[in-house]
Amino acid sequence: MRPQILIIGCGFGGLEAARAFSGSRGADVDITVVDKTNHHLFQPLLYQVATAGLSAPSIAAPIRHLFRRQPNVTTLLGEVVAIDAQARTATLKDGALLRWDHLIVAAGATHSYFGRDDWAPYAPGLKTLDDAFEIRRRVLMAFEAAELEDDAAKRAALLQFVVVGGGPTGVELAGTFAEIARHTLPGEFRRIDPRQARILLVEGGPRVLAAMPEALSERAREQLSALGVDVRLGARVTGIDADGLDVTTAAGAERLHSRCVVWAAGVAASPLGRALAEATGCTLDRAGRVVVEPDLSLPGHPRIQVIGDLAAAQSHKPGHPPRPVPGVSPGAKQMGRCAAANIRRQLRGEATQAFRYADYGNLATIGRNSAVVDLGSPAGPLRFSGYFAWLFWLFAHVYFLIGYRNRFVVLLDWAWAYWTYDRGARVVANAALPALSEASPASASRPAPRPPAG
Amino acid sequence: MRPQILIIGCGFGGLEAARAFSGSRGADVDITVVDKTNHHLFQPLLYQVATAGLSAPSIAAPIRHLFRRQPNVTTLLGEVVAIDAQARTATLKDGALLRWDHLIVAAGATHSYFGRDDWAPYAPGLKTLDDAFEIRRRVLMAFEAAELEDDAAKRAALLQFVVVGGGPTGVELAGTFAEIARHTLPGEFRRIDPRQARILLVEGGPRVLAAMPEALSERAREQLSALGVDVRLGARVTGIDADGLDVTTAAGAERLHSRCVVWAAGVAASPLGRALAEATGCTLDRAGRVVVEPDLSLPGHPRIQVIGDLAAAQSHKPGHPPRPVPGVSPGAKQMGRCAAANIRRQLRGEATQAFRYADYGNLATIGRNSAVVDLGSPAGPLRFSGYFAWLFWLFAHVYFLIGYRNRFVVLLDWAWAYWTYDRGARVVANAALPALSEASPASASRPAPRPPAG
Repeated sequence: MRPQILIIGCGFGGLEAARAFSGSRGADVDITVVDKTNHHLFQPLLYQVATAGLSAPSIAAPIRHLFRRQPNVTTLLGEVVAIDAQARTATLKDGALLRWDHLIVAAGATHSYFGRDDWAPYAPGLKTLDDAFEIRRRVLMAFEAAELEDDAAKRAALLQFVVVGGGPTGVELAGTFAEIARHTLPGEFRRIDPRQARILLVEGGPRVLAAMPEALSERAREQLSALGVDVRLGARVTGIDADGLDVTTAAGAERLHSRCVVWAAGVAASPLGRALAEATGCTLDRAGRVVVEPDLSLPGHPRIQVIGDLAAAQSHKPGHPPRPVPGVSPGAKQMGRCAAANIRRQLRGEATQAFRYADYGNLATIGRNSAVVDLGSPAGPLRFSGYFAWLFWLFAHVYFLIGYRNRFVVLLDWAWAYWTYDRGARVVANAALPALSEASPASASRPAPRPPAG
Repeated sequence: MRPQILIIGCGFGGLEAARAFSGSRGADVDITVVDKTNHHLFQPLLYQVATAGLSAPSIAAPIRHLFRRQPNVTTLLGEVVAIDAQARTATLKDGALLRWDHLIVAAGATHSYFGRDDWAPYAPGLKTLDDAFEIRRRVLMAFEAAELEDDAAKRAALLQFVVVGGGPTGVELAGTFAEIARHTLPGEFRRIDPRQARILLVEGGPRVLAAMPEALSERAREQLSALGVDVRLGARVTGIDADGLDVTTAAGAERLHSRCVVWAAGVAASPLGRALAEATGCTLDRAGRVVVEPDLSLPGHPRIQVIGDLAAAQSHKPGHPPRPVPGVSPGAKQMGRCAAANIRRQLRGEATQAFRYADYGNLATIGRNSAVVDLGSPAGPLRFSGYFAWLFWLFAHVYFLIGYRNRFVVLLDWAWAYWTYDRGARVVANAALPALSEASPASASRPAPRPPAG
């Protein structure tokens, strides 16, 4: 019987691994891709869904649709909860068992509250479409509630937005929130001025975009300030509740009142890492990532490979010391191709090869017309920021977007948004204010009749 | 102080009424538009969101964005729960009071289970974006669950889709479900053949599209059958549960096993109708609609007008007996303009005028390339069906879609879908199978290991 390859997770890593078995390269194997959702998500643009710039279908493609022309791939919707390395099976949540001869685990990461999961209800993170819809709802509903609020202090709290975490996601969200408040919403409200909204970016470290060279981090901070974002560096979050959050800086402790806090700080590997550790005795690093061999396999389990954000992998460049692979999509894609190639080598009875990460650089966008780019080039590092960096970022992302139609629709949406400042996806399906009102029973005890347009 | 006009609900009727006060025609009034959601919904295309053909933002526009250039309009997100005709106030759910001098109630309708609300969890209706997302989820997840299901009977139940109600919405949904099963999904599954899915349309009456001339109803039935829909006429639903539904026909009772039943049968007026009756003593018809005067005002309450699906209104054509106004968007729009004009007349101290409905005809789509059109024309009724009727329907709907960008994106989506049979919005944010699995604990007790791609 043909070797059965099971791929858990269809993010950038899993998708790339499965595609590496297309055509003749996969003629002799059967592949099963199992994912918790029915879609491959283009994570780098998820913040655009959260900020109402793009609709969900623009950045998400049905997984089985992506494999429709790869007959050796079976797509299953399900969540793997247990792995048996001896029996070579994976167990789905509903009890179904999947057999495998080779296993690629690409379950990715989720956000972590550093052990303070009680913060989650007050500060949603951004990993899934549901997260994005929830953030979109909270941001837009905060302005709606402010328009209805008579109490000045409560209105101010409703119009104060706090993003925790100065990584790429936090910077993108804060910058776009500022754009919404300054450019998209003014003129649509009669009682409040959306431009009075305050957007704070709270980062525990000394600079934003820590993965970038210091100079570019400084550029990013400047561009955020220019967009109207209040950047708080070296500020540690000590508490979050329905009314806001507590931060501690060198200057001391401070209470930030806010009804809309977004969590972009911590990342933790998928819980499947623990399941793997129980099944194989492999070790996890502090972030819960699986420590893998140079060839991405598990120590003592050559048939199991771990890739993407779930793997604590090293890049092995001949003549250089091993370097950790950053948690970016190119890394996951390259690991996917490497894992697939190593499985083919095993099937041919050849030795596997160590993973080597090709670093094409690092880019992050801050908001309209502003981004920072750090590229390696034969002539040494190439670094620039501002408008051209933003254009570079835009086309790089649209280029890598899955599906040609998506790319076109996204470009169209952005062209429109750029000229009109409009954000096409400002639609909230579940537009109930209670989530906010509970936090502010104010409006109930509102002074009686007043002119509607007063 | 300027007269305060309060408009409850921003569907076709409320939106048109508010727009009728734009520019100089509204120079001397203040308008407040309050709606439960933050968006105006283009209801006629909602079934396209439910069937993954369009993304939500394509057919929904933020209400306050629509009024951004009409400074005399204040948009509020809120649900009116009570009306006081003497004090001239409306109470929002959160307790806030809105004062009005003139009131236009355009709260629309919701779906009715004819007193069997216990059916709701098993047969969602289609009125809101949330409804559409839920139906999209159930349809797509049914195919996903079938791909995982080993039991043939359970697989058949998962692949049997039942639409209850043969009105325009039911016909559109059934036709599109068939298109998805026959054209969109085949080739993407490895264990099931989506073409084996059965789509049933259950209608209690003797024909579908009862509002249409009999000949066109027959065309519609033929076109549905051609698309592969099993149309059951004269079939009354007597029960719905997690496992399917019971229908009774002349031939006797029958059990239809299905995990995906959609309710497109009953429509009931908004509960606000009852609130109005309590406040003013006005009478409601059997569907809960408010019986209004010829000028759309409430008997004895000239400052309150009820329009759209919430109104049991008559069209008063001089020299003809009054005729009931059909519950279609042109009717709601015309009532909106009439209500606004009558308020302006009252402000000028003139007499109000009776509402007259201009009937431009009736059209319904069935699916790819098929629709039925019934137009009045100077040369008498103009009726046609099939491909050209479909083209006519498509452009008529895109033309009336709110917002030029929407129109363009929708046309683009359709052009793409037409040539590729792909449906761009096949994305389910909350892609959890449990909702189905609970109904079928089958998979848990599944026979042990089997090849993934077996």
